[in-house]
Amino acid sequence: MDELVSLCARRGFIFQSSEIYGGINGFWDYGPLGVELKQNLKAFWWQRMVRGRDDVEGVDTSIVAHPRTWEASGHVEHFSDPMVDCRACKKRFRADQLDGVERCSASKTGEHDLTEAKQFNLMLRTFIGASEEAANVAYLRPETCQSLFTDFKRVREAARQKIPFGMAQIGKAFRNEINPRNFTFRSREFEQAELEFFVHPSERERWFEYWLGERRRWHADLGFGDDVLRIRPHDSDELAHYANAASDLEFLFPFGWQEIEGVHDRGDWDLTRHTEFAGKELTITDEETKERYTPMVVETSVGIERTCLALLCNGLCEETLEGGETRTVLRLPAFLAPVQVAVLPLSKKLSESARRLAGDLRRRFPVFYDEAGNIGRRYRRQDEAGTPFCVTWDFDSESDAAVTVRERDSMTQERIGVDALRAWLTDRLEMPA
Amino acid sequence: MDELVSLCARRGFIFQSSEIYGGINGFWDYGPLGVELKQNLKAFWWQRMVRGRDDVEGVDTSIVAHPRTWEASGHVEHFSDPMVDCRACKKRFRADQLDGVERCSASKTGEHDLTEAKQFNLMLRTFIGASEEAANVAYLRPETCQSLFTDFKRVREAARQKIPFGMAQIGKAFRNEINPRNFTFRSREFEQAELEFFVHPSERERWFEYWLGERRRWHADLGFGDDVLRIRPHDSDELAHYANAASDLEFLFPFGWQEIEGVHDRGDWDLTRHTEFAGKELTITDEETKERYTPMVVETSVGIERTCLALLCNGLCEETLEGGETRTVLRLPAFLAPVQVAVLPLSKKLSESARRLAGDLRRRFPVFYDEAGNIGRRYRRQDEAGTPFCVTWDFDSESDAAVTVRERDSMTQERIGVDALRAWLTDRLEMPA
Repeated sequence: MDELVSLCARRGFIFQSSEIYGGINGFWDYGPLGVELKQNLKAFWWQRMVRGRDDVEGVDTSIVAHPRTWEASGHVEHFSDPMVDCRACKKRFRADQLDGVERCSASKTGEHDLTEAKQFNLMLRTFIGASEEAANVAYLRPETCQSLFTDFKRVREAARQKIPFGMAQIGKAFRNEINPRNFTFRSREFEQAELEFFVHPSERERWFEYWLGERRRWHADLGFGDDVLRIRPHDSDELAHYANAASDLEFLFPFGWQEIEGVHDRGDWDLTRHTEFAGKELTITDEETKERYTPMVVETSVGIERTCLALLCNGLCEETLEGGETRTVLRLPAFLAPVQVAVLPLSKKLSESARRLAGDLRRRFPVFYDEAGNIGRRYRRQDEAGTPFCVTWDFDSESDAAVTVRERDSMTQERIGVDALRAWLTDRLEMPA
Repeated sequence: MDELVSLCARRGFIFQSSEIYGGINGFWDYGPLGVELKQNLKAFWWQRMVRGRDDVEGVDTSIVAHPRTWEASGHVEHFSDPMVDCRACKKRFRADQLDGVERCSASKTGEHDLTEAKQFNLMLRTFIGASEEAANVAYLRPETCQSLFTDFKRVREAARQKIPFGMAQIGKAFRNEINPRNFTFRSREFEQAELEFFVHPSERERWFEYWLGERRRWHADLGFGDDVLRIRPHDSDELAHYANAASDLEFLFPFGWQEIEGVHDRGDWDLTRHTEFAGKELTITDEETKERYTPMVVETSVGIERTCLALLCNGLCEETLEGGETRTVLRLPAFLAPVQVAVLPLSKKLSESARRLAGDLRRRFPVFYDEAGNIGRRYRRQDEAGTPFCVTWDFDSESDAAVTVRERDSMTQERIGVDALRAWLTDRLEMPA
């Protein structure tokens, strides 16, 4: 894990927000490689879950919603963790996560002198308008899904959708975690990609199974096999009172199996609550049977940064090559790699033609151009960044209009004509259908 | 303008956040069409400004940064608007925007009884950690650029960039506007796309002109001619004390000429201030001349929602057709349209083949499939949504494997073989280089 954190900072994937001010706990910045990985991952989710289907509508709602939203959802009343303080060292901990916390630095025994547990609401509050009175309190959303429920009627009508159909969005959410930890895993600011799929009550089980399968397939396309990804159904005592079923998709991180996605049968809880709090009907009338009902909801909710972290953990490895040399290689799926094609002239004398090729490829792919250092070292740098293909322009290229393409994982090389290169790369870099 | 606002709500482009709770002033949700327009616009900016260049590095930084950031930037001290209250009707106004405000509803004369102007800081505050003490105050960033300065050293080193080079990001920012207005134009939550380009002090004028030209070209690619987009250089008394030059790019909205982008020479103000407040050197040493200096910065900063609004205003028109019928058409640039291709079977009997075609095209383009209603009405619905191409599958298509493609603006129709369709569309839907 330390090695990964250090690689991420050194190569500009991920580093602490506000580093020059000593950082701010629970907030992270994504650098030039990190932002591309994150964007590619989001684009893949969006293509599979929204653009690629005709029964899901995308939206992009504001982070700050009307505060009644969070009363209806139950967050104002219930979204809290139990917290204890140490009277000696003044540190604060989650009462349910005391195993393995550091020892007390202010008491001789090393034992903390803990207060009673107190409930601590995890929503970040702010004030809208010119005064800090209670009437103006607003919250930074702790999850992106609630506005999918409050916008349900408007979107269904605008898009002329019928049940079953879904609404989806990708966006930021905030939680005032007491102890952010495990690198980016538990952060205070993060992105979620959520789908709420509205179905007839008689079909909730079927759709729950369908979406669980779809989501497992998505993670398989990220390269997560059963050795690192498992489905953990919730026990009946973990289920919310309105839920029929829920499963976590857990990834095997260096710090253990942890949830990166949840698939939940939320029943009609959310629509019913918003109907009650807003005084607006959110029911459906079936055109054929004339039955009026509140749809049931199957939700899929994945953490974007958690999945990025899983991709980095799954991809990073140290290899010993035949000659005894070692290399660090980041085996990211090619279609998600921050740099998909590196263009490397064998000599600086060839830079004019190589730059022209890079410029041409850049219209279609994320391209990195590098002419500094020997070719072996340049390959290593790309291996570490997860670049699947290195295109080397050599002295022969000037006459035969062909280049050598080297593949990251196998390190095999293939000679390909420049005319055919774009199609060759497109085939290998397209998202899975 | 009213017509645009109503179209946006009805068709699911943009509507008030939390509508069912009566809305929340200054916050907007983007529906199925709006989110695609916004995403396409951001992708175009990113391609032109980041992926398409090798001298700009993208990043994605957290909305909440270390609070010292905003002391260094001057926002804690100076980022405020003058505000007045009416003692009679209790409404609040910006003291510098009193022209044309509604009349007082509580005084007989209709005149407001205004207090003295008070400065009101526009940053939204929140509290990180478990208590609401001053030590834990944090701000939602009022602009995305400051972390480009605080991350400058880390990113330059990770990406091995030399001056001149730039850093760019797209992200949310928040301002506690006293009077949000003009639809989405002045919102409290919005997205910016910003570039900070770091140059040698001797080159600041040249790069300022370069980026001003580049940005004008970008807006031209959105279809904004000189009749709706103008460059307004700041007068010397508008310039910040550290700035050499600044120009606004203004669009002619129904409510007048208004800034949608700013290009600024920020000098070395930001890097110098963060050096001072963080106690960390942010200088550059030129490898050849050994000169040590603080780079100067040229910034380009565009509002994503403002540009979306400009696209909608520029695109919307009512046309009278030859037969006297009228149609509403949204002339969005084809590469930005939320739906790029609509697939319409002439009869429901043809839906199997038409659906297959739609499914195939959906892998590459945003596709909408519609089989409800007569073909004329379906064309009109697509015109209103800005869809550039309608592909009609008719009875001949079953035997000749060709379709009729109708273009939105000219309404001309062309017969194209299904085999050639994908390439035909790709040519017409690609982003401008």
